[in-house]
Amino acid sequence: MTPYEIISKKRDGLELSAEEIQHMIMGFTNEEIPDYQMSALLMAIFMQGMNKNEIMAVTHTMLNSGEVVDLSHIPGVKVDKHSTGGVGDKVSLILAPIVAAAGVPVPMISGRGLGHSGGTLDKLESIPGFRVDYSIEEYSKKIEEIGVCLIGQTPEICPADKKLYALRDVTATIQSIPLITGSIMSKKMAEGIDALVLDVKTGNGAFMQTYEDSVSLAKQLIAAGESFGKPTIAYITDMNEPLGRTVGNWLETRECIEAMQGDGAEDLMEVTHQLCGTMIYLGKKAETIQKGIELSREMISSGKAWEKFLEIVKSQNGDLEMVKNPENYPQAEYQTIVKAEQDGYIAAVNALETGLTSITLGAGRMKSSDKIDPKAGIVFQCKKGDAVKKGDTVLTIYTDKKEVLETAAERLAKAVSCSSEKPAAGSLILDMLDKTKL
Amino acid sequence: MTPYEIISKKRDGLELSAEEIQHMIMGFTNEEIPDYQMSALLMAIFMQGMNKNEIMAVTHTMLNSGEVVDLSHIPGVKVDKHSTGGVGDKVSLILAPIVAAAGVPVPMISGRGLGHSGGTLDKLESIPGFRVDYSIEEYSKKIEEIGVCLIGQTPEICPADKKLYALRDVTATIQSIPLITGSIMSKKMAEGIDALVLDVKTGNGAFMQTYEDSVSLAKQLIAAGESFGKPTIAYITDMNEPLGRTVGNWLETRECIEAMQGDGAEDLMEVTHQLCGTMIYLGKKAETIQKGIELSREMISSGKAWEKFLEIVKSQNGDLEMVKNPENYPQAEYQTIVKAEQDGYIAAVNALETGLTSITLGAGRMKSSDKIDPKAGIVFQCKKGDAVKKGDTVLTIYTDKKEVLETAAERLAKAVSCSSEKPAAGSLILDMLDKTKL
Repeated sequence: MTPYEIISKKRDGLELSAEEIQHMIMGFTNEEIPDYQMSALLMAIFMQGMNKNEIMAVTHTMLNSGEVVDLSHIPGVKVDKHSTGGVGDKVSLILAPIVAAAGVPVPMISGRGLGHSGGTLDKLESIPGFRVDYSIEEYSKKIEEIGVCLIGQTPEICPADKKLYALRDVTATIQSIPLITGSIMSKKMAEGIDALVLDVKTGNGAFMQTYEDSVSLAKQLIAAGESFGKPTIAYITDMNEPLGRTVGNWLETRECIEAMQGDGAEDLMEVTHQLCGTMIYLGKKAETIQKGIELSREMISSGKAWEKFLEIVKSQNGDLEMVKNPENYPQAEYQTIVKAEQDGYIAAVNALETGLTSITLGAGRMKSSDKIDPKAGIVFQCKKGDAVKKGDTVLTIYTDKKEVLETAAERLAKAVSCSSEKPAAGSLILDMLDKTKL
Repeated sequence: MTPYEIISKKRDGLELSAEEIQHMIMGFTNEEIPDYQMSALLMAIFMQGMNKNEIMAVTHTMLNSGEVVDLSHIPGVKVDKHSTGGVGDKVSLILAPIVAAAGVPVPMISGRGLGHSGGTLDKLESIPGFRVDYSIEEYSKKIEEIGVCLIGQTPEICPADKKLYALRDVTATIQSIPLITGSIMSKKMAEGIDALVLDVKTGNGAFMQTYEDSVSLAKQLIAAGESFGKPTIAYITDMNEPLGRTVGNWLETRECIEAMQGDGAEDLMEVTHQLCGTMIYLGKKAETIQKGIELSREMISSGKAWEKFLEIVKSQNGDLEMVKNPENYPQAEYQTIVKAEQDGYIAAVNALETGLTSITLGAGRMKSSDKIDPKAGIVFQCKKGDAVKKGDTVLTIYTDKKEVLETAAERLAKAVSCSSEKPAAGSLILDMLDKTKL
């Protein structure tokens, strides 16, 4: 069983054994197998795919390359949510307090933004003082105390995934469903959960652009979760439009603050409540998903989610006063607006273009070492379906970089299309999948 | 044009531009592009293939990565032969003297044996003192003096190919027709030839095991040669049986000495004369290939090829006395024979098994750093089609490694099959291809 033989097998479309997969991934992680052999195997996996057994072996190997957090001493069914990422996807910041307020512990290890899609950690860190770098012990203690903690990946969690992801990132092998599945699920299985809800985005602003790929990824994720004995439910949700009214880290955090105080955008809250309701159901605090959704709405209307959010901010060293008075946050140096070019309706706002443009403003990263400006971003005064008159403000751009302002405005003007007909309104929740639908 | 984008394009089955191919290969050669990106691209090329333009770009880039030998000051049409390699393929040692004796200059840069197939350099070096490490200047001078020189690849020739081949060798990307074509033709175009004859082997002992792949490779090789304005003719020849009566470096050299003195095995001489005749034709010393073959036979019967061989040995510092008295060569320490198990005919001798077994005897290499024992190998007393009686000696094994003797004998006994029917005799020359047949 040499690396050469293992590469050849996958190249020729044969199934790799669990031992072969473990040999390659752990050999690579321990620097016994060179990166050039691993990258040849990654490309062969990209092209030939992997079956369910192979995906399980990838997931188990990466999970076992590091520590698995044990939260069994904390009472209750621990439930997390994972989204495959999108533009304006700020759901986690509202969802974690709602679900924790409903009595379901939420252990959440999140990521940073990369490319056109944002990341929960960057949004949280836009709150002055907010820390996401707690140790596993501190993370575990905070969940015990207030029922929720949101941190970044620690070095002890899935080191093999970290190393493999870095290699995939430079060898054009990211977009492989088996490898994505292994990467997501190994990390989720390490964080100490009992059940999982997945938000698999689909559309131009999503990681998976076609509906078929999104469903296929969702099924693999569910199969992996269930293979660990963790009930897993996945939603396919539309990501052709930015979610909510803002894109950019502090702008999105502020939108979440407003949402938790009862003023959430319709599309954002539809997705949030669906995911929260499902988590509450899996966490056994509601008999059905529908009842979970009702409880989720109650957490907002009663102010309990907002109270829980303040608890989180306090627990994770964030500036409570700033969160309570978001109008005091420093503003970006430059602003400009994009106006409607005709009377009619907003027909579409291209999510991918919005995400890519937000990077130029300073709101995102092209590579993981890029620095983020939390003040930068876009606020939409109008969204898809809104009636507009020529000259109405459609969106406002915020940035400290004067030189990008004009290009960004031109680009966003093109990203928004108008129509004389009102576009059909539809739910963003396109499908729900669980183990009965594999 | 980043390596990432180039890898993605080929991964998705798109055509790479000449600039993109050059950027990757030269970047890798100059160590500006890391090997893990190159190996991901190699696997993508392996899986997606390359069209004619891309293959040309690979060949030109590798050729231009080093020096191109200029032999234009030497009169005559310079012609070389390249074989894709096989078991017992010793043709070059007889062919070079024949063609040079017929007045066609032969500039020949050869390789070493690897895996089950042998290499011309190893056979030549089995002659005590024989040097194959001459500089380009000395090589050029020797061709000018005696019309022929056989050396190994110098560091100035196609350094990009050398580096790329080493990476392909450890990433299971050797067996790719576009990459094989680029590798072979860049080196051939660098050696100073005006025309080329190709021997593309097919069958279990060949690099290309299926007939379709062999024809496909032959066509790509011809297209590449012709794109440089070098007339190129290719033969598809059968490599299901070892060629001639011996496998192993000195044993094969000795067989060549006998062949040049008029006692050559029928199959070996059929292939040799066909290739020589074609070279003589391309070298404009015969009006047709058929007349070239007649001239080739004359070079043997007149003793002129043998005389030319002695000139080569002398010119390249080989031990003339040993070549003239091969019976003085040291013998391997251990010998054993394999006998016929029944009365009848030899139906087949598996070339691949013969080649692989010869490695265990010390006659070949599994990896390029392995050392070779020139005395080790196999002599066939019987070949396919020969009538045998139970107990007749079919073959003799020679090795210094006592511990492998028994296993080798068992393996070779299985590699030889007998039959009560005489197998149909057929030509080894299965097809001839030139630019009119692309």
